[in-house]
Amino acid sequence: MLDIAARLSPPPELVLGPGDDAAVLRPTGGESIVLSVDLSIEGIHFRRAWLTWEAIGYRATAAALSDLAAVAARPLGALVSVALPVELDTSVYLQLASGMTEALAGAGAALLGGDTSRSPGPAVIDVTVVGAAEEPLTRAGAAPGDQAWVTGRLGGAAAAVLALQSRFEPPPGARRRFERPIPRWREARWLAERDIPTALIDLSDGLAGDARHIARASGVGLRLRVDAMPLDDALEGWSDTGAARRIAAGGGEDYELLFTAAAGHVERVRSAFEQAFDLELTRVGDVVEGGGVAWIDRAGEPVDPPVPAGFDHFATGSA
Amino acid sequence: MLDIAARLSPPPELVLGPGDDAAVLRPTGGESIVLSVDLSIEGIHFRRAWLTWEAIGYRATAAALSDLAAVAARPLGALVSVALPVELDTSVYLQLASGMTEALAGAGAALLGGDTSRSPGPAVIDVTVVGAAEEPLTRAGAAPGDQAWVTGRLGGAAAAVLALQSRFEPPPGARRRFERPIPRWREARWLAERDIPTALIDLSDGLAGDARHIARASGVGLRLRVDAMPLDDALEGWSDTGAARRIAAGGGEDYELLFTAAAGHVERVRSAFEQAFDLELTRVGDVVEGGGVAWIDRAGEPVDPPVPAGFDHFATGSA
Repeated sequence: MLDIAARLSPPPELVLGPGDDAAVLRPTGGESIVLSVDLSIEGIHFRRAWLTWEAIGYRATAAALSDLAAVAARPLGALVSVALPVELDTSVYLQLASGMTEALAGAGAALLGGDTSRSPGPAVIDVTVVGAAEEPLTRAGAAPGDQAWVTGRLGGAAAAVLALQSRFEPPPGARRRFERPIPRWREARWLAERDIPTALIDLSDGLAGDARHIARASGVGLRLRVDAMPLDDALEGWSDTGAARRIAAGGGEDYELLFTAAAGHVERVRSAFEQAFDLELTRVGDVVEGGGVAWIDRAGEPVDPPVPAGFDHFATGSA
Repeated sequence: MLDIAARLSPPPELVLGPGDDAAVLRPTGGESIVLSVDLSIEGIHFRRAWLTWEAIGYRATAAALSDLAAVAARPLGALVSVALPVELDTSVYLQLASGMTEALAGAGAALLGGDTSRSPGPAVIDVTVVGAAEEPLTRAGAAPGDQAWVTGRLGGAAAAVLALQSRFEPPPGARRRFERPIPRWREARWLAERDIPTALIDLSDGLAGDARHIARASGVGLRLRVDAMPLDDALEGWSDTGAARRIAAGGGEDYELLFTAAAGHVERVRSAFEQAFDLELTRVGDVVEGGGVAWIDRAGEPVDPPVPAGFDHFATGSA
C-alpha cells in the first residue's frame, strides 16, 4: 500500500513518513491531535457484489475521515490496515489503494503508515485517521433554545442500499451518495471558525440515532420536525411519505453533519455557506430541556418517530 | 471495549477521551506525535489453539507498542479495532480486553478509541499506537565503525512456536517470551536520553531480517558474529548449534532492540543499563562500509548466514 504515499502530498507536520517503524508528526503550536478509527469487514460493512474495490477503498477511508469532520478537525493523514482473501490477486490491492488515495487526496491527507496481511476469510479494512484542531467540537454543548441543523440532503446512501438489497440498480445520484460520500470536514471547520456550532456530529448512524447521541452528550432533548428533513433526490416525490422519511431519518452513511447553534446564528451565515460549498443548510428542529429525541409535525404536534426506537441503521451487510 | 478506558490512567495529553467521535491529544510543546499500526489475523498471526484470548489481546497490543520502542517514543495510547466470529460469546471480548489492558497499563498508555464488529470469518485485531518523542530515533544513522548491540536474549518466542507446531508444550520461559513479550520502550528511551543509539529497530522479524533494515536505511553494511548472539535459555545447550542459531537469528517476535552505537559508547553505560532493567546488552557485531548483512565467526572469518537468504521468520500461522 505504501506506493500510495508517493502520490499524496505529505502535510508539513509529517517529519518521518511511512517506511520506518512509525510515522512522526510535529503538530504546530497550540493545535491538538485528533484520532479516530473505522473498521470495515466484508459481509458486515460492505459487499463485493455491490461495489468496486475502488469504491470499497474510498468509502472505508471517507467514513473514517468523516469522524474528523465530526469534531471539526483538519485531516493530516491515515494509517491503513488491509487484509485480503488469499484468492484475490494483487490488482485488488491497487484498486483499493486507488480509492483510498482518492479519499485521502480529496481531504489533503497523507498515508502515514499501514499493515497488510492475507486473510483466511473476508476482506478487512481498518482506517485510523489523524487530524489537527485548535478547538475540537464535540457532541456536548447543545443548550435549550438552540436550533438543530443538517448539511445537504438525507437518505441517498440508504436508498441505494435498499435498491441493491432488492437487486435493483439504484438511481445514479443515490449510488453516488453511497459510493462516494464526502466527509464534510471543510464545512465543519468553516462553521467552527465562525463559532456557529454548539454541538456537532456526523451522520453515520442516521439522523434519528445521531440526534440521540447529541442529546445524551449535551444533557438536553432534541425536538425534530418530521417534515423538515431535507430528502435526497432519490426520495423526493415518493407517494409513501412514511417510507421516505424512515429512510431519511434511519439511513446511515450519508456522512452529512448535524449540529446545534444558538437561534439566529446560522441564518447570518447561511447564504455564504451555501455559496461556498454548494450545499444546503436546513433547520430540522430545536434543542429543548429534558432528554432524548422527540418528533413533531409542521403544527408542532407530537408524532411517532419515523424510525422505530432501537432501530440502528440500514446495514450494508444484511441481505 | 471502552470499559478498558476506565481501568487505565489517561495521559495528561488526553483532552477528549473515547466516547465522542474521536480522541483528542494535546502534545506538550516540542514533542512529536509518533504513530504505528499492527494488524493481527487469526490463522495468520495467531492461533486460538495455542494461546488464551487474554494472551492474544496482550500480544497484539505489545507488538504495536514495540514499534514505539523502535523509535524511542513514549507510549500515550492506542486505538483498537476488534472483529470477532459470531459464534464466540461476549466473554471473549472481556478476555481480549483484559490482555490489552495489561499491555497498555504496563506501558502507561490509554485506550483512545476503537471499533468493534462481528466477523464472518477469523478474529481480527488491529492496534494503532500513539506515542510522543522529542527526537524520534530511526533505522537510519548507523555509520561505519559503529558497533551493533542487542538487548536481552534471542529466539525464545520462535522456540515456543516451533514446539507448538510440533505439538510439544514449550519450556515455560519460552512460552512466556511468546505470550508476554515486553515492548522495550523504556530501555529505548533510556539509551536515547544518553545519546547512545545511532540507529534503532525492534526485533519483530528476527535479527537477520531487522539488521538488513538498518543496513538499507543507513546505507551501510552490518557484520554480525554468529557465535555472539545471546541465546534464549530454551536454546542454551542445544547440541545442534546450527539449529539454535537459526532460531535465534531468524525467529521473529522477541521484540528485543537492535541498535548501533559509536565504539565505546555502550560500554560506558552498560552496567547502569543492565542494573536498571535487569536485562543484558550484548555486542553482536559491527557496522562496516558497503551494504547488507554479512556473518562471521569468532576468528572474523566469513560464514554462511544462520538463516537462508530471503527467509522471513517463524510464522505463527504456518502449521
